[in-house]
Amino acid sequence: MTEPNNLAPNNADLKIVHNSLLDGLGQLATYFGFNKLLGQIYGAILLTTEPITLDHLVNQLGISKANASINMRTLERLGMVRQVSVRGEGKRKFYEAEADFWAIISSILAGREMRDISRALSVLTDSAQRLDKSKGEMTEEEQKVAALYMDRIAQLQALFRFAQNMMGTILARDFEDIQKIDIE
Amino acid sequence: MTEPNNLAPNNADLKIVHNSLLDGLGQLATYFGFNKLLGQIYGAILLTTEPITLDHLVNQLGISKANASINMRTLERLGMVRQVSVRGEGKRKFYEAEADFWAIISSILAGREMRDISRALSVLTDSAQRLDKSKGEMTEEEQKVAALYMDRIAQLQALFRFAQNMMGTILARDFEDIQKIDIE
Repeated sequence: MTEPNNLAPNNADLKIVHNSLLDGLGQLATYFGFNKLLGQIYGAILLTTEPITLDHLVNQLGISKANASINMRTLERLGMVRQVSVRGEGKRKFYEAEADFWAIISSILAGREMRDISRALSVLTDSAQRLDKSKGEMTEEEQKVAALYMDRIAQLQALFRFAQNMMGTILARDFEDIQKIDIE
Repeated sequence: MTEPNNLAPNNADLKIVHNSLLDGLGQLATYFGFNKLLGQIYGAILLTTEPITLDHLVNQLGISKANASINMRTLERLGMVRQVSVRGEGKRKFYEAEADFWAIISSILAGREMRDISRALSVLTDSAQRLDKSKGEMTEEEQKVAALYMDRIAQLQALFRFAQNMMGTILARDFEDIQKIDIE
């Protein structure tokens, strides 16, 4: 079994930077509603110069094989890691990371996030229609409440439409644009 | 004790819409990294025509007073609810919701989110400097690893700068703009 020489760096500074990046990617994962370990596993794969196996990750991160395996499946599904074959290693599964962050993030935004916003908007439309239909049968007191609900629904619709527009603006940019931003 | 007549609506359609909005606001809260109950409590206050007390919320949502109280303090700190005095109710604390969603969201983005991005960028800068300083003492093999880390750091810096720009763009708009978006 080939042990990637850079899997757990020996140099003290490399080690510090390695751990700091894994921490950061762990936190970033939680921002997108995933668990921290998912980000850390992705980071560990992103920071090797050669493809690595599930066993490497289990050893390096001190996690259970089951836990590593579940997260790896999620990472594959999200297009964040992929299996690669390594010559002379037979059927053992090796993984490498998708390093195009923009491709990853835009696929999450375009898929899950946009779907969630559309769903929220359609629930709000249904609610508005429901109130509209039944307000004729409401008491005066209930109609006041219905009017308040209608106002809140309209505000939420405006908010989600704004989010939808922003998301569209973000997705319309491509990674070239991002790369153009100056790096100190 | 005045029981707000609209706290738990009797009309079946009002009840359905009320619960649906509380669910939605609960989910929205989790998007911003808060717990679901925080969003539901905010929703319950947002959907009353009169200020309500902690006891009202405890009854309505079937939660413990301690739980309601902790979340209410967070909501007050975030500027999402405020205490108001109600004539003839003496020292009992009544609450009303901040209904300007944009004010709430932009204060969260401008505060916590922007701080998190700045912190991430400064950690990345530190990491890059650390590698730069120590690469002279690294073996050739270690230098290869350091070069990979430097590439990843540069990519992450570009990504966070992009996020910082987007956040700036969002914050530069004001609620008037959002209101202008057509509502069906």
